[in-house]
Amino acid sequence: MGNRGLEVGTCQPLEPAANQVQVRVSYCGICGTDLHIYFGDLDVRVQPPRIIGHEMIGFVEKTGSAVEGYKPGDLVTVRPLITCGECDACKRGHNHVCKKLCVIGVDAPGAMQSFWTVPADTLHRVPTSLSLEEAALTEPIAVACHDVRLGNVQAGHNVAVLGCGPIGLLIALVARDKGAHVILSEPSEIRRKVAEGMGLNCVHPSELEKAVDEMTNGVLCDVVFEVSGAGPAAAAMTKVTRTRGMIVIVSIFAKPPVVDLKEFFARELQMCGARVYEPRDFEEAIALAASGRLPLKQVITSVLPLEQVNEAFQAAESGAAMKVLLRIQS
Amino acid sequence: MGNRGLEVGTCQPLEPAANQVQVRVSYCGICGTDLHIYFGDLDVRVQPPRIIGHEMIGFVEKTGSAVEGYKPGDLVTVRPLITCGECDACKRGHNHVCKKLCVIGVDAPGAMQSFWTVPADTLHRVPTSLSLEEAALTEPIAVACHDVRLGNVQAGHNVAVLGCGPIGLLIALVARDKGAHVILSEPSEIRRKVAEGMGLNCVHPSELEKAVDEMTNGVLCDVVFEVSGAGPAAAAMTKVTRTRGMIVIVSIFAKPPVVDLKEFFARELQMCGARVYEPRDFEEAIALAASGRLPLKQVITSVLPLEQVNEAFQAAESGAAMKVLLRIQS
Repeated sequence: MGNRGLEVGTCQPLEPAANQVQVRVSYCGICGTDLHIYFGDLDVRVQPPRIIGHEMIGFVEKTGSAVEGYKPGDLVTVRPLITCGECDACKRGHNHVCKKLCVIGVDAPGAMQSFWTVPADTLHRVPTSLSLEEAALTEPIAVACHDVRLGNVQAGHNVAVLGCGPIGLLIALVARDKGAHVILSEPSEIRRKVAEGMGLNCVHPSELEKAVDEMTNGVLCDVVFEVSGAGPAAAAMTKVTRTRGMIVIVSIFAKPPVVDLKEFFARELQMCGARVYEPRDFEEAIALAASGRLPLKQVITSVLPLEQVNEAFQAAESGAAMKVLLRIQS
Repeated sequence: MGNRGLEVGTCQPLEPAANQVQVRVSYCGICGTDLHIYFGDLDVRVQPPRIIGHEMIGFVEKTGSAVEGYKPGDLVTVRPLITCGECDACKRGHNHVCKKLCVIGVDAPGAMQSFWTVPADTLHRVPTSLSLEEAALTEPIAVACHDVRLGNVQAGHNVAVLGCGPIGLLIALVARDKGAHVILSEPSEIRRKVAEGMGLNCVHPSELEKAVDEMTNGVLCDVVFEVSGAGPAAAAMTKVTRTRGMIVIVSIFAKPPVVDLKEFFARELQMCGARVYEPRDFEEAIALAASGRLPLKQVITSVLPLEQVNEAFQAAESGAAMKVLLRIQS
């Protein structure tokens, strides 16, 4: 699977078991995690052959015998998590950080196939007023909603987002929608231009401190989202956070970085990690997408058919793209 | 001041201004900050000659013309903070993290003198039922109360305290008083024995992970206090914190350590810094000391007269002591 080896093949659709639903997949986005699988970073976890993909939109095709509330033709997206229900996190109601969390599309067969069979309790209904392409963004929007919720972003807050890939961009858009003043930092000029095209202020990381100082009249940011996973950003995050402000760790630091804990003491900074989403984040994401308030069409930089999966991953890898979608079935 | 140069001299008591009170100091404890000044670590901030000391108990001697509510003979302690009232933190009601925070005894003349003149609004009344020596611990107990409050320690929580100096020990005692199950880690055998003498479980840092695993049946700690400022403790803290648990940074990391931010993401860990105290922490500390529920006499390992200030600092420096008090006036 790693070493950039992706192949399009054929497989037999799985018949849904009693509590499962078979979904006819319309579109599936390429996530940063999919890129990590593509690069081979997750070879220990993801063994080929594996159908990947977990950001999707589609229609119910068949329902298992015990499934209620869904019928063929319903427009749905999938919250692609299967949890153990038995670990400490699950027992306390935080099953999105289940000790044995199974991300469908990473740890189990994913959505880059015509018919995807998943547990019925992972489904969320999507209003048909949304275009299918926009609706395919529900999963990453739910990530952003979760992050913004854990950061407790309020109207009037000053917010910095370090890293402007698809997730950083969506966090910025969701935070702005809450009434926050938002600044992003991103080394890629192409990505900065995408953000600027949406009316967002996006600076090079070398200019972040000065820009935050100006935007906030020196009081710095109430909430800072670290979405880059880069060591220099870990150093910057404590410099742009307001006294008693909150840092949200969204990225995965493969190498533990140096963090200026003295600043945590001196200014009583706060920090929390934020992983995936809970059901209410999916509901918020669907409502927000349906509201039309987010410029979702601009987030999608290309749409390619499944047959061109290698070109699609190359586009996603290039850094020239924001969100790349695969058209699975039309 | 640094380079271990402390001298006992004479000075003229300052007459209290309108909003000040002159306090006759009975006892003054030696704090870690005092040791840092003694070592010269704070030479940039503390220029000799400076009277230091900020953990004290004493009696009102004289009150300024505008002071109400205090009279000569009242037993008091001092919350040794002067704040600017104008910075962002002060305006938001967090003046204990004032941008220009003045710690009296560090940034202004301190309590290791017979008569100490301070703003009246720094005073807290202390019940005479407490012994003067125990009452001299109010300030470090207030630090512990602040830390435990920000950590949101609840009855039944599993709590780890990394570092068993006087502050770590007091945090452990306050957390235990809240009904938490507490474990400490500390490299000094002498300090471990002091903690064990109070019925606390205190292990060598090399044994912490195993001991936490056993104490918590594998679910790890709800709240972890980092009180050592040591790099290995910064590495350990993420390993002993429960999913969605809280790490409280109490220590001052002179050198920014490596922190495993991936654990923050994966298990949605939380972290906050905790600095000094707010007025309510002082009130809680006084009530707690007066309750008799903390073994405060055992926290005090020696009491020496002011004339033996060098011996007292050597004792505090040795690591063989827990809290060392100076008797200023009896």
